[in-house]
Amino acid sequence: MEIVGEKINGTRKRVARAIAERDEAFISELAISQVNAGADYVDLNAGTRPEEEPEDLLWLVKTVQEHTDTPISLDSANPKALSAALPRVKHRAMVNSINGEEERLNAIIPLAAEYGCKLIILAMDSKQIPKTAEDRAEIINAVVKRTDAAGIERSLLYVDSLAMTLSTNTASGKIFCDTVSILKEKYPHMHFTAGLSNISFGLPKRSYINRAFLTLAVEAGLDSAILDPTDRDLMAAAYASELVLGRDRYCMNYTKAYKAGIL
Amino acid sequence: MEIVGEKINGTRKRVARAIAERDEAFISELAISQVNAGADYVDLNAGTRPEEEPEDLLWLVKTVQEHTDTPISLDSANPKALSAALPRVKHRAMVNSINGEEERLNAIIPLAAEYGCKLIILAMDSKQIPKTAEDRAEIINAVVKRTDAAGIERSLLYVDSLAMTLSTNTASGKIFCDTVSILKEKYPHMHFTAGLSNISFGLPKRSYINRAFLTLAVEAGLDSAILDPTDRDLMAAAYASELVLGRDRYCMNYTKAYKAGIL
Repeated sequence: MEIVGEKINGTRKRVARAIAERDEAFISELAISQVNAGADYVDLNAGTRPEEEPEDLLWLVKTVQEHTDTPISLDSANPKALSAALPRVKHRAMVNSINGEEERLNAIIPLAAEYGCKLIILAMDSKQIPKTAEDRAEIINAVVKRTDAAGIERSLLYVDSLAMTLSTNTASGKIFCDTVSILKEKYPHMHFTAGLSNISFGLPKRSYINRAFLTLAVEAGLDSAILDPTDRDLMAAAYASELVLGRDRYCMNYTKAYKAGIL
Repeated sequence: MEIVGEKINGTRKRVARAIAERDEAFISELAISQVNAGADYVDLNAGTRPEEEPEDLLWLVKTVQEHTDTPISLDSANPKALSAALPRVKHRAMVNSINGEEERLNAIIPLAAEYGCKLIILAMDSKQIPKTAEDRAEIINAVVKRTDAAGIERSLLYVDSLAMTLSTNTASGKIFCDTVSILKEKYPHMHFTAGLSNISFGLPKRSYINRAFLTLAVEAGLDSAILDPTDRDLMAAAYASELVLGRDRYCMNYTKAYKAGIL
């Protein structure tokens, strides 16, 4: 599992304040704690000030890179912000995210191709999040035609099949997993990720639901997740799921994570 | 999910002492706490004194029934103990368990038929626990021929596909789930249960593994489990799994369990 640590997110009030105040200590601590907890990527979201976003995102990149050597995910759909930040990203960046919207595709695919980025693709377009797995897969098919044409390797693509809350549609978990299954069969070299927590929106004791969902999504083919890596129960669910599914030879990853204090 | 509460087990030292001393307060408290935590059955295991087992098991039945109205599972392979206890069990009893051994089949099937019991069947015989799902299913096929012949309805049967530890074979989880899938297709009216915790024997942080296993087993068709219902995380994993799998209409069972304080 590739874990994308979600905590440096400027839509959270406390993080927005830290960004506005250039609070390096706060941001670096958020980065380091996620890396120590097992994050493979640190996601950076500069928040909701479009004018300031290019400068804010660049500051986040510099700040985080001064304190960790872990790769970075740029959580932005703003080509200006991405253009400002990408030249300063040390390791191969992940861009989070594009979807089937024409405007985003036109703006971001060339940047991703130029910088050799990994790319998260959401299974939605400007009109809708489709209700069926087949229709979500159709959107991804269309996007992959575009990334293929731009010369982006499929192994750099991470599909987010979109976990919608079960509270309004109890089929949401199944639709998500079915979308992953369909696409994994068609694109064996692509990756599958998820912003997990939306699955439980509006329900009590959300962490139980998130964990069960993670386990079932890993079975369907999820090999990456965007989550809070300092949530040990959730991280442990990821490791334990791989183990129970027979995908962890000699229980090596599980016992290593235990010894590293991640579980 | 039908939950069989496993805690009144005479192979545990403290419980063995309580049985030997006829400590009604201790046993009834173990029963009540499991029922309050959501147990649908209270499992009674009188322990390892074969001479005393009939009397001990009968005492357990009487004691527990004085304090709860929850059905009882008799955890014994001793026909004498079962013969002593069964006439005193108020609700339909569950017998835990038979397997493919000729001697057990001959002794216990007639008793189960006479008293209309539910019956847990282990996917093993006197020689072995088979290594493949297909061979485990074969054993169950043979046992079902016998229960059919004795007139025991298939809806009264609970197959335990046998969770073996992942620490010696990382395919154990998969073999378990495959056994359930094969048998569920063949016998749609039968039930599927598991003594869960053996899956994680010898590994650290076992509860994480047990939870992930429960989720994947529920997907495969598990509709019952033998576990410690006072383990909230494990109980919650059962409810959350059904919910994520889209099998909990309007999230009703999950939110009910939450309101009842089970989660």
